[in-house]
Amino acid sequence: MYEGAIQDLIDELGRLPGVGPKSAQRIAFHLMQAEPADARRLADAITTVKDTVRFCARCFNVSEAEHCRICQDQRRDGTLLCVVEEARDVQAIERTREFRGRYHVLGGAISPIDGVGPDELHIAELIRRLDDEPVEELILATNPNVEGEATASYLSRLLEHLGVRVTRLASGLPVGGDLDYADEVTLGRAFSGRRELGA
Amino acid sequence: MYEGAIQDLIDELGRLPGVGPKSAQRIAFHLMQAEPADARRLADAITTVKDTVRFCARCFNVSEAEHCRICQDQRRDGTLLCVVEEARDVQAIERTREFRGRYHVLGGAISPIDGVGPDELHIAELIRRLDDEPVEELILATNPNVEGEATASYLSRLLEHLGVRVTRLASGLPVGGDLDYADEVTLGRAFSGRRELGA
Repeated sequence: MYEGAIQDLIDELGRLPGVGPKSAQRIAFHLMQAEPADARRLADAITTVKDTVRFCARCFNVSEAEHCRICQDQRRDGTLLCVVEEARDVQAIERTREFRGRYHVLGGAISPIDGVGPDELHIAELIRRLDDEPVEELILATNPNVEGEATASYLSRLLEHLGVRVTRLASGLPVGGDLDYADEVTLGRAFSGRRELGA
Repeated sequence: MYEGAIQDLIDELGRLPGVGPKSAQRIAFHLMQAEPADARRLADAITTVKDTVRFCARCFNVSEAEHCRICQDQRRDGTLLCVVEEARDVQAIERTREFRGRYHVLGGAISPIDGVGPDELHIAELIRRLDDEPVEELILATNPNVEGEATASYLSRLLEHLGVRVTRLASGLPVGGDLDYADEVTLGRAFSGRRELGA
């Protein structure tokens, strides 16, 4: 529709996740009218990420070195290992400041529909780590949806003979939420996972 | 939150219009994991747009030459001039294939709240074009919102002594819409703008 370069940019932006044709057009016009230095910084940031960011060789978190900051940090508790689907889940858990152990990023969840089986995930590497590292508790922090639950139950069956304690994040009512607005499954989980007060 | 380059990219993406922190993170991870050639194409498209795309010297549409394709096209009717707010409005009108005249892009609409007065828009250039070109009808196609209406009424008052016919796009019910769902102002406009059938 547009002439050459601006249409090329709209096409490229439209391939990004969550960016529809209207947003792509809006962003393209924004960039076209932005300060050259601002547009240049974005283009450079994309190139730099491709050149410098990779996955941690141990836990598959994002990293600029062979091992990520968390794996390099000697103060982290090596007996606790938290298994997550994606590197962004590591950041979400880090923001809680509740967890001082280490992570293992699977790179997704088991999803037959999307053609993702156990072999597509970093599960073999997880088992190798359990051999090499002094892990006592493995916390399965995959998402509380169908794929995440399937992955967690696959892993718990796979690991039951290894003698490591396997736990799963609690499901229940979100803090600050309304009981009235909770879906039945969440409310049911909140019931079955109820805890004694003062415990 | 993240290490160096990926956080830089998230920050840069978060500055784009309509891209919130979550989308920025999602896009950054997508780019990090994309094929290097795909990411490179996006970075190049941004740079190329800044280097090659500019505004048409006559109508302020986007262009890669001094004059845009529409201004260069000798088959367009020079007696009809359609005034729009933004270059993307030109594309929207072109898609209708209803209009074979030329355009003039104001570069926005009068909006005192945003500090945009007539002097910030390409209005002086419009008046110069009315002197130089054989325009017989000026179609005010600014948006049917407060700013667009204000701009249209400002222009119609400014141009009334020039002897050129000034028209405004019709407001009314959207085609395919439900009368029931139309807001009162739109429905009111549809009434006041009603046309005789068979006319």
